[in-house]
Amino acid sequence: MKAQEYPQPVLELIAALKRMPGVGSRGAERLALWFLQQGRAEARQLAASLVTAADSVATCPECGFFSNAGETCTACADAGRDSRLLCVVEQPTDVLPIERSGSFRGLYHCLGGKISPLDGVMPEDLAVDKLLQRVADRPGCEVILAVGSDVEGEATALYLAEQLTSLDCRVSRIAQGMPAGAGLGHADAVTLMRAIEGRRNL
Amino acid sequence: MKAQEYPQPVLELIAALKRMPGVGSRGAERLALWFLQQGRAEARQLAASLVTAADSVATCPECGFFSNAGETCTACADAGRDSRLLCVVEQPTDVLPIERSGSFRGLYHCLGGKISPLDGVMPEDLAVDKLLQRVADRPGCEVILAVGSDVEGEATALYLAEQLTSLDCRVSRIAQGMPAGAGLGHADAVTLMRAIEGRRNL
Repeated sequence: MKAQEYPQPVLELIAALKRMPGVGSRGAERLALWFLQQGRAEARQLAASLVTAADSVATCPECGFFSNAGETCTACADAGRDSRLLCVVEQPTDVLPIERSGSFRGLYHCLGGKISPLDGVMPEDLAVDKLLQRVADRPGCEVILAVGSDVEGEATALYLAEQLTSLDCRVSRIAQGMPAGAGLGHADAVTLMRAIEGRRNL
Repeated sequence: MKAQEYPQPVLELIAALKRMPGVGSRGAERLALWFLQQGRAEARQLAASLVTAADSVATCPECGFFSNAGETCTACADAGRDSRLLCVVEQPTDVLPIERSGSFRGLYHCLGGKISPLDGVMPEDLAVDKLLQRVADRPGCEVILAVGSDVEGEATALYLAEQLTSLDCRVSRIAQGMPAGAGLGHADAVTLMRAIEGRRNL
């Protein structure tokens, strides 16, 4: 007697779903069974969305955010934005959180990562040349360094600030301090130190 | 100025992923971005698995478990199984947990649900006729009712037991009592009541 198992296509679907981040064996099995019980339309729809996204989504040649293939992204194409304000982020996925905060109306620049020699990521692996070129094209612009506040982010910000000194631009770094709505009791020592160092007169 | 958003195919992929059970807005966005950053192969592979599973997986005409289209499932096709032992479950997804327990070597019968008048599920919506026919084909067989121990499961078990009285078969119900490894302090009153009622001599 052989133990009952799912048919091969189900096992393959489970394996494919399990490769997604945050989806374990049980979760992948539950998702696969859900698709089977929903009927063909649901599975076909996700399959079509996956293929369409994989085929038609590209990287904006200007800023590195997502765009439709062969086009710049909607921000770079938007004449209503302040093109003399460049916000430098690590990843394309960092753009929408800033956008949703409603506090920025300039253009973005996605580096594609942060300097991290231990992970083999050096400045030449990032979109630094393109940034310098975009800044040179906009004399007197402001460059906001919105990279992360971890060690690699700090190193990246310092490196970029150094590279930008010879250009006609103002360089700023987003503030570090207490996150909104947090009690002092939950803040770590480094956050508190930076919040005190960065204090502002009222 | 328009707020920067993802290209339309990305938004559609997020919407499709979000329909999966247990995946919220943030989770769907994270998964979609992961697919975009993995490149086309990963998205295409999941898409292919989804389409293959949707097209080639069917329901076993004998027991209602998953099977390859046009075939019976591996258990029904397995001559090494005890065909005079039928385990009745609510859903096809209940089969593998029993199978993995290693404690059953007969055939299964998936009802497709449980009697629940409030949800509009009546006995005629379940694979009861097929069960009666399978039992009639196996005089002297044993039918193990492995439906759930909730109210609807109990009602379904009682209904099936009644339907089966006129047939030449033995009907049993899986035991109810303390789950393995649980302390008495965590058991609810109904579980304890059933565990005491179902006590066995040592």
